[in-house]
Amino acid sequence: MTHNDTIVALATPSGAGAIAIIRLSGDNAIIIASEIFTSISGKKLSEQKTHTIHLGHIKDGTRVLDEVLMSVFKNPNSYTGEDVVEISCHGSAFIQQEIIQLCLRKGCRMAQAGEFTLRAFLNAKMDLSQAEAVADLIASDSEAAHQLAIQQMRGGFSNEIKQLREELLNFASLIELELDFAEEDVEFANRDEFQQLITRITQVLKRLIDSFATGNVLKNGIPVAIVGEPNVGKSTLLNALLNEERAIVSDIAGTTRDTIEDEITIGGIGFRFIDTAGIRETKDTIEGLGIKKTFEKMDASEVVVYLFDAINFKKLSSHIHVEIEKIKNKHPLKSLVVIANKVDQLSTAEISALKDVIPELITISAKTGMGVEDLKATLLNFVNTGALRNNETIVTNTRHYDSLLKALEEIQKVQGGINAGLSGDLLAIDIRQALYHFGEITGEISNDELLGNIFANFCIGK
Amino acid sequence: MTHNDTIVALATPSGAGAIAIIRLSGDNAIIIASEIFTSISGKKLSEQKTHTIHLGHIKDGTRVLDEVLMSVFKNPNSYTGEDVVEISCHGSAFIQQEIIQLCLRKGCRMAQAGEFTLRAFLNAKMDLSQAEAVADLIASDSEAAHQLAIQQMRGGFSNEIKQLREELLNFASLIELELDFAEEDVEFANRDEFQQLITRITQVLKRLIDSFATGNVLKNGIPVAIVGEPNVGKSTLLNALLNEERAIVSDIAGTTRDTIEDEITIGGIGFRFIDTAGIRETKDTIEGLGIKKTFEKMDASEVVVYLFDAINFKKLSSHIHVEIEKIKNKHPLKSLVVIANKVDQLSTAEISALKDVIPELITISAKTGMGVEDLKATLLNFVNTGALRNNETIVTNTRHYDSLLKALEEIQKVQGGINAGLSGDLLAIDIRQALYHFGEITGEISNDELLGNIFANFCIGK
Repeated sequence: MTHNDTIVALATPSGAGAIAIIRLSGDNAIIIASEIFTSISGKKLSEQKTHTIHLGHIKDGTRVLDEVLMSVFKNPNSYTGEDVVEISCHGSAFIQQEIIQLCLRKGCRMAQAGEFTLRAFLNAKMDLSQAEAVADLIASDSEAAHQLAIQQMRGGFSNEIKQLREELLNFASLIELELDFAEEDVEFANRDEFQQLITRITQVLKRLIDSFATGNVLKNGIPVAIVGEPNVGKSTLLNALLNEERAIVSDIAGTTRDTIEDEITIGGIGFRFIDTAGIRETKDTIEGLGIKKTFEKMDASEVVVYLFDAINFKKLSSHIHVEIEKIKNKHPLKSLVVIANKVDQLSTAEISALKDVIPELITISAKTGMGVEDLKATLLNFVNTGALRNNETIVTNTRHYDSLLKALEEIQKVQGGINAGLSGDLLAIDIRQALYHFGEITGEISNDELLGNIFANFCIGK
Repeated sequence: MTHNDTIVALATPSGAGAIAIIRLSGDNAIIIASEIFTSISGKKLSEQKTHTIHLGHIKDGTRVLDEVLMSVFKNPNSYTGEDVVEISCHGSAFIQQEIIQLCLRKGCRMAQAGEFTLRAFLNAKMDLSQAEAVADLIASDSEAAHQLAIQQMRGGFSNEIKQLREELLNFASLIELELDFAEEDVEFANRDEFQQLITRITQVLKRLIDSFATGNVLKNGIPVAIVGEPNVGKSTLLNALLNEERAIVSDIAGTTRDTIEDEITIGGIGFRFIDTAGIRETKDTIEGLGIKKTFEKMDASEVVVYLFDAINFKKLSSHIHVEIEKIKNKHPLKSLVVIANKVDQLSTAEISALKDVIPELITISAKTGMGVEDLKATLLNFVNTGALRNNETIVTNTRHYDSLLKALEEIQKVQGGINAGLSGDLLAIDIRQALYHFGEITGEISNDELLGNIFANFCIGK
């Protein structure tokens, strides 16, 4: 263990709550905790077994700071792999500060962002991809994002990569061994089997690389541009979509989350709704700028929703047709959903007439909730959740995606080498490069800069 | 145990953090936790010892919700006195919700505010005054408030009250026993000893009642009205007073608290600064209203700080004198601090001249920090921290204060009865009343309404 000084941090969110957890990890974690803690039972903390909890008081000299529970974890059986103590204290910001300052005076130092998880990685409690999944898990705010993070944290992705890497490493060793016997012209590495492996690796890499499009969408939510004039009912629609989820959240007092106004979870998938103005033809420069922005927002979205007011359809019918055509022409490959709102004010015959004119139309009343379920189903249809349902590995991390792309490039060079009948020593160079990129993902290959970048995105205390 | 259904709540603050704690308490806490938890070791949670921690997964059917640590506490050795399980999960709001919802589906119900502590009280893990101190402790934001809450939580106050109550109860029993032998004219209760006890109780009650003035100030902070024209440097002064504390807070990343802009801790005591306009004479009705407000704010304060700009002193000298006199006349009993700001721009001779004119003057430069320490010392001098330093019992709770006043009233009736040579049966009535009010404090006497009022002020999860 290179890092063995003892770090301390608040591990729970700051702010008022019943309890707070202060976490210590390092060679002296239990020793320092013993110095500031007097147990009710009179037993010494340093003599306790791992994974036990002890009631007592944190004291600064004779001054009692708090009545706490101390959880003791002994290396290597802890999150970091080091000795760890978790102090469960009363959730006052003042008490948290006092206890952390006391720990600092007793020889701890403040943990940096992600440093507990960094240590877990350095002490081989998890690989790098699993460590990254911890941050994703904490940030997960939809069922899909959560499931992807859990899967990655439990090592699904890592195992797949590690296995390929190991098989490739075996062949690399055999091929490099041949080089030592170059004059004898032996082949330790069976070329047929090697070709099979390269084919299989190529397939897996392509599948993983392809999965990133889905993974990125599932993790970060699907950007949906809503195009529509003012007063066609955009915010009522967002509220109608939001309603169900909100009800669930507010059922559980104390867990209300900060909602990003326009992020809505439908069927476990996050959708980020981006409000835009309409795209009505204009000669006004300022409004022209608005239209430019609308198109920019559409560029950044995966799905475009065009919303119009069913009551005004007759009057504006030609205008609406023009707008729909414009969107289709500008973004022929984007998914487009055309919605007529306020149909509660139309007769059944009028609704039918509308659908005859625009066959793909979804008719809703955001106010009454009519048709909203249909819309949800339509939106969910755009998301490929098959891979998620089948528990296939899905890549969600840009860093992993980059490494996979580089690995594939090298593997394709190896394939080219095989096709061209290259000698083992030349093949070996590209294989080593591919291995390097595999190793980057799981952290067999890492450097301080890379680790710094990854863990800087963690919160303090994790 | 009357309440034995199993309750669940988030015990850590909501929001993003490394970890969150979900707490279960009740007859089925361990059974329900076992149903949703699969330990890594393969051991059953229900077969584990109290005060042990177990790593594993929370599963909803086959779906893994999170990798967690489960802490098991078996009754009566838990906070509530019931079986308790604390789930330490990843700090994502989504995960918190999912786990809590799973617990609800498995038969838990959402805990009400303070319900864990209410159960601790009902199961005799703490008395009512100690339970109230838990809420004070969580709310404590200064050293003084914290020390008072800790002392009360550890039973200092309760023990004093309980002991008096017990002694009084003994005498009450003896006196009531005499009534059964009324015809024999015996005295089981020694009247001299009884008089001594009543004297002692009266002294203790008076001391406790007197301590409330200090306790209230120490717990809630001292209101200080700052009177001064615009631009005399009020906000610079507040910043100068705040600086040191802020530095400490921001040293500990992750523990930054929401600061009420004008609440400043000096030497462990909270001061609440209330900004007011000046009180310059005016005929303008609107400005007249401002002056009325300034005086109202002074009414609500314990200390009045009058701040003026030293540079303008010559020009405004008579005006400043008038204002100081006005404050003194309006509030002859309030502590007044007169401060000349911006003295960094004056020569030593000019500063001396100023002090000659206003002997009690404190000269500071809020900008350079000059004199700020003197001001702090002056402000601290207004606070009677002697009782706090001597670890004397200080009453901080209005409910306790009210009960103490009522108890004193009854005790004084008893004293009057003794003086008037009243018979035992008449004395006994007042003694019982006094006992009732003692019992209210520690909770020997309570009712659902009282408990409801007290615990409604707690946070969920405590």
